[in-house]
Amino acid sequence: MLPESVIRKITTLVGKSHVLTAPEDRWCYAYDATDLEAMPDLVVFPGAAAEIARIVRWANEFAFPVVPRGAGTGRTGGSVPVAGGVVLVLTRLNRILEINPQDLVAVVEPGVITGRLQKAVEDYGLWYPPDPSSADFCTIGGNVAECAGGAMAVQYGVTRDYVLGLEVVLPTGDIIEAGSRTMKGVVGYDLTRLFLGSEGTLGVITRIILRLTPKPPCRQTLAAGFVNLAAATAAVGRILTSRLTPTALEFMDQATLACLQNLLPLTLPPEVAAVLLLAVDGHPHDVAERAERIVGVCRELGAVLVAEAKQTAVAEQLWQARKSISPATVRLRPQKVSEDVAVPLSAIPSLVTEVQEISRRLGLPIICFGHAGDGNIHINVLYDRKVERERLAVPLAVEEIFKLTRRLQGTLSGEHGIGLTKAPYLSLELSPTAIALQKRLKAAFDPHNIMNPGKIFP
Amino acid sequence: MLPESVIRKITTLVGKSHVLTAPEDRWCYAYDATDLEAMPDLVVFPGAAAEIARIVRWANEFAFPVVPRGAGTGRTGGSVPVAGGVVLVLTRLNRILEINPQDLVAVVEPGVITGRLQKAVEDYGLWYPPDPSSADFCTIGGNVAECAGGAMAVQYGVTRDYVLGLEVVLPTGDIIEAGSRTMKGVVGYDLTRLFLGSEGTLGVITRIILRLTPKPPCRQTLAAGFVNLAAATAAVGRILTSRLTPTALEFMDQATLACLQNLLPLTLPPEVAAVLLLAVDGHPHDVAERAERIVGVCRELGAVLVAEAKQTAVAEQLWQARKSISPATVRLRPQKVSEDVAVPLSAIPSLVTEVQEISRRLGLPIICFGHAGDGNIHINVLYDRKVERERLAVPLAVEEIFKLTRRLQGTLSGEHGIGLTKAPYLSLELSPTAIALQKRLKAAFDPHNIMNPGKIFP
Repeated sequence: MLPESVIRKITTLVGKSHVLTAPEDRWCYAYDATDLEAMPDLVVFPGAAAEIARIVRWANEFAFPVVPRGAGTGRTGGSVPVAGGVVLVLTRLNRILEINPQDLVAVVEPGVITGRLQKAVEDYGLWYPPDPSSADFCTIGGNVAECAGGAMAVQYGVTRDYVLGLEVVLPTGDIIEAGSRTMKGVVGYDLTRLFLGSEGTLGVITRIILRLTPKPPCRQTLAAGFVNLAAATAAVGRILTSRLTPTALEFMDQATLACLQNLLPLTLPPEVAAVLLLAVDGHPHDVAERAERIVGVCRELGAVLVAEAKQTAVAEQLWQARKSISPATVRLRPQKVSEDVAVPLSAIPSLVTEVQEISRRLGLPIICFGHAGDGNIHINVLYDRKVERERLAVPLAVEEIFKLTRRLQGTLSGEHGIGLTKAPYLSLELSPTAIALQKRLKAAFDPHNIMNPGKIFP
Repeated sequence: MLPESVIRKITTLVGKSHVLTAPEDRWCYAYDATDLEAMPDLVVFPGAAAEIARIVRWANEFAFPVVPRGAGTGRTGGSVPVAGGVVLVLTRLNRILEINPQDLVAVVEPGVITGRLQKAVEDYGLWYPPDPSSADFCTIGGNVAECAGGAMAVQYGVTRDYVLGLEVVLPTGDIIEAGSRTMKGVVGYDLTRLFLGSEGTLGVITRIILRLTPKPPCRQTLAAGFVNLAAATAAVGRILTSRLTPTALEFMDQATLACLQNLLPLTLPPEVAAVLLLAVDGHPHDVAERAERIVGVCRELGAVLVAEAKQTAVAEQLWQARKSISPATVRLRPQKVSEDVAVPLSAIPSLVTEVQEISRRLGLPIICFGHAGDGNIHINVLYDRKVERERLAVPLAVEEIFKLTRRLQGTLSGEHGIGLTKAPYLSLELSPTAIALQKRLKAAFDPHNIMNPGKIFP
């Protein structure tokens, strides 16, 4: 528990209206998009980096945890305050400080909603490509802390590839700037990319300099249905290695399609076992030509349905349906565990096939969908908490999926991070030496372990 | 000096033919592409990561420096053994272990010449985009250690953007793997990108997993000459903000052009004060249309010469001339200091204009060329060591250039790193707090400071 005196100090610093002390209020910041929850001792909405720095100094002095939080849309428990302490909700730091079309940069605070940033830069004819499915409600600070990906990563990369510089409150309470507003920079160690994906354990990000790109003049969306999984994954391989440079290449298996009934603006023949959803960007002639060649590849590999969405409305519906998969899984089961392993591209067929086998063997619905174009497959293990058999099978399924992923030379997380949920499995991927080094690195930043403790490391 | 017993141990480990002890032999590994030199106590050509690990353990036990070295083409003294010790020349680790067109990855050892890798992947219709000017003789390990850039970075990014995973011998002698062979990955702290640009101070890179891309089907090269600097830099701004996405956008000022006489396959009108050299990549229609629009922009801004190199031979000559600038500077002066600052795109005109002013004021030839498309301008301060006035003016010029760069919100190094030459200026860019954090980070990796000591930090 936080001493009363500390609560008073913090309240005086940020103002009474920016602090939550009542249990029912604090409870709203106890959880994220997993089913984990832990009660914070205090919830604070700081208004400036200097306030955060003061609170962090007190955390070192009075030994309490500090847990930074954006919109709480994380999928691995990264912002759940497992050790109590102060949750710093960064939603008040929500200003777009600058959009500069000459320098092709934006400077933003961490609490900016990603979708708001995307729209704001579009007014300048510019583009911020990373597009996590939660873009309409997640924050850019959370995207940086987790190194969020999304469907556009195939061609355009992930959050990491767009962050040029950061202002960060270190776990010691010092404020530093990392990186710069230049496209290139190699001065000292790359702290900017070290903070990327560090899950709030190395500091509180308070300002972000982002690289923007010109918006491609034309985009076309394509959907292709296949009667078997093998044909769909073969099409993925062919498209990726045939100079067709898709912007997005998403995959949905049959169970996923069942969740999406009535949400897809397509009438799928009942025999369709997998759908690929693609986008192609660029100049109009080339988009048309590449789209045609992609359609050719899909038809050649036996696609039974190919839809070319030239109308923006249909394309938007298709992408909206894709973004709705996660909430739509409640149609099959009320609960789920959402994994996001990534495998080498050639291993996608084995991954999906063997996951379906695990699903059958354990009698649990497991759906596979997501970013086939970069091997980052979302595997959702669905269950009903009230059914003991299902509840008990979930951890078995998760462990089998992770072991399978490692056997295929894959990684436990493509874009969600480790947080709490994957921490027990960390040693499946990192050697004891690598984990020890990572812990020394954490200690070099955070000698008193006050910043988001209990995350990443088991 | 290294104890005789240590030299014997190392010789027994790697074999007599892989060790240099004679001063005249060691001298060949005392310098890099700067004019700095320092004699190593021993030069070793290890044949495996396990050998390196043993040597590094001895370095901790017997307290001697270990300095990794590729081809010695660095421009900031990064591989110069200022504190003596063992230079580890990694040229024997020169195998391309795998090129996998299904997974779109290559696995290589650090001593592979970058140009050899580029050619090898082209046989598979694939592409490794980073293309430093020294590609024909530098090593990929050095590229990773310095985070090398090159002309293609405008559209395709730098070395950092292509490294998926690494095997590294840590300064403790442990061997770890960082990253993976997947396109995405966020498991634990991003050690892969931390090693990128760490200049051999955090470990010895012994294996590299690289991301490859399909080679763009079409490329066109363009050259445009302008009678004044302002028009040339205005064209850079217009091209970058007009959705024309050049692959490369290189700039050469008048003094640079003087160095290149007879090397450029163009007859430049005498009034030309600056040349832009561009490449446009992609699908054929798109390339043709963008090239035409770029020509339009250049003409509109007063270009007096526009060459469209549709013949590959001419295009190759143009790019070869660009890569020859650095050696060609001897035509103006025998010595040079080569800086590679980067500024925000809108600051390029001010940078180049003010550098010319510094040149006039100090009476030193200073040439500006390089990667205008990402704001990374190579500023070469030319001098004759035998002319005292020039020799003494060089450090004044360098300091003025760095201060100017910082005033323009730029960074001291876009792609060469800090090494020895820029270490005295580090505090122009990083705060005392940031430097202290970076030193703690170094200590977490290298408690006895044996790995490439004396670099980065002043």
